[in-house]
Amino acid sequence: MRVAALAGGVGAGKFLRGLARAIPARDITVIVNTADDLMIHGFLVCPDIDSVTYWLAGVADRERGWGREGESFRALEQMKLLGGQAWFSLGDLDLGTHLARADLLASGLGLAATTDRIARGLGVNATILPMSEDTVTTRVEVLGSSGEHLDLHFQEYWVARGARDEVKGVRYEGVDAARPSPGVMDAIGSADAVLICPSNPVASIGPILAVKGVRDAVRDRPTVGVSPIVAGAPILGMADKLMPAAGWEVSAFGAAAAYRAVADAFVIDERDERLRARIESDLGMRVAVTDTIMSDDAAAERVARAALGLTGS
Amino acid sequence: MRVAALAGGVGAGKFLRGLARAIPARDITVIVNTADDLMIHGFLVCPDIDSVTYWLAGVADRERGWGREGESFRALEQMKLLGGQAWFSLGDLDLGTHLARADLLASGLGLAATTDRIARGLGVNATILPMSEDTVTTRVEVLGSSGEHLDLHFQEYWVARGARDEVKGVRYEGVDAARPSPGVMDAIGSADAVLICPSNPVASIGPILAVKGVRDAVRDRPTVGVSPIVAGAPILGMADKLMPAAGWEVSAFGAAAAYRAVADAFVIDERDERLRARIESDLGMRVAVTDTIMSDDAAAERVARAALGLTGS
Repeated sequence: MRVAALAGGVGAGKFLRGLARAIPARDITVIVNTADDLMIHGFLVCPDIDSVTYWLAGVADRERGWGREGESFRALEQMKLLGGQAWFSLGDLDLGTHLARADLLASGLGLAATTDRIARGLGVNATILPMSEDTVTTRVEVLGSSGEHLDLHFQEYWVARGARDEVKGVRYEGVDAARPSPGVMDAIGSADAVLICPSNPVASIGPILAVKGVRDAVRDRPTVGVSPIVAGAPILGMADKLMPAAGWEVSAFGAAAAYRAVADAFVIDERDERLRARIESDLGMRVAVTDTIMSDDAAAERVARAALGLTGS
Repeated sequence: MRVAALAGGVGAGKFLRGLARAIPARDITVIVNTADDLMIHGFLVCPDIDSVTYWLAGVADRERGWGREGESFRALEQMKLLGGQAWFSLGDLDLGTHLARADLLASGLGLAATTDRIARGLGVNATILPMSEDTVTTRVEVLGSSGEHLDLHFQEYWVARGARDEVKGVRYEGVDAARPSPGVMDAIGSADAVLICPSNPVASIGPILAVKGVRDAVRDRPTVGVSPIVAGAPILGMADKLMPAAGWEVSAFGAAAAYRAVADAFVIDERDERLRARIESDLGMRVAVTDTIMSDDAAAERVARAALGLTGS
């Protein structure tokens, strides 16, 4: 069974570790959001690609959630002291990834081949693909503290300003011109199932589906989503701040509604059992209910198996 | 007494620590070669500026010579594993410097202000100035192992290829259009003396003197050189490979001759005592003789005092 998975960052990383226990990793192609990538200190950082890569490689920091296990921050501390921009935290091992990426891109490789080289270097057996090699940027329009309108890069909104601003709108700059990365359309087209990882529907999955051709290709496959919302709040991140701006209720129902046009079925948490009937009747989606809190790989495998169980007709 | 010092890398750094014991550091302006700067992984690395900064800050690694004391190489090791270019060794603390430099430059500061910000951040009291904010690059023309002509960036010649090629010529690309950094001409013009640190005459001091106006300004001040050559060989580095290509004998005499047009006097090592008369008579330069091996700061202070002793008339 071949699976294509649409993924954001840490939530997706945890889920994919479980999926790679349920089916062979080599049969999984992960298509990762790049719309929160940023240029910093002169090189490209791809937070979602790196999260997925580190989680699948088994080198992610489980306690902190982001970044690498056993990470140190010597370069960052020094950079702070010497006047550099330290708002985006980069560990020493993580820097190794970014510098390798800079060199691989400079050597003429595309972002897809670069991502693959890095993932294989860390021992990942699944295929990890950026959604696009073209630049797409999630911009968040907010009301600042003095009522001023600000148009922020997603990472400015989320990391630099701590998601404190009232969100008025979200858009994916550049997405109309963005083509899927080499391999993306094939992976979706040849997949026995597409899984939508428990990631932010607006900041992570929305940009992937907005890349030319992806939404239609996903719609053509048996597709199952996993709710990133449990009991009315995101398990991780700030989906609750962005979903209302996109017109979605902050609930497992709202997340299911966000995927209704592309997904046939949805996995929700047992705490949201009461929403099952509404999703089934109002949205016409099949529903599986399980404990979706992925505290370890075994728990993640249970969620993955619930999703895989919905891929039949 | 105000001193302007022309400097390359590690040899200059050691000497300057001695100079800063002989006179107050705040009275020293160091004008540093930038012609072996390089772009790597997307950011600018300034090896000579960093060496001088680390030595003056007291954070240089005395044993290894280059880089920082207590350095680690976690980013580099990771980068190697993931396919990055690891030929130019960058430690984690050192990376902090380069990333801060990238940010300061991106914020609109020039290289002179950026260099100053970094040096002050590390507690340096002397003023450190790049020779120019314009790009100058030392190119080394060599015969490759199959007799082919190659035109290499200085760092390619020196670090990547280990100075193994036969050198046919050296040129300072871009120097005709390069202006001195803000502060350079003032520092030289107002100096009671100019000291030429024991650096490579071809790779380090040559580019500084070639920047528009610098050679004439130095000639107008009482100027003293310190020999980087002892007993016919460089104390550090590969001046022996480059001096012949520039037409200089590899000896304290050859080094003195390289500076004859700008310097009145020269410090040589006691092992080269026999060259004193020849330098005095053939080149018309006053000479001081001392032990120039700078094994510690006290030894460096002795060399600095010998140079300062020659600055009177």
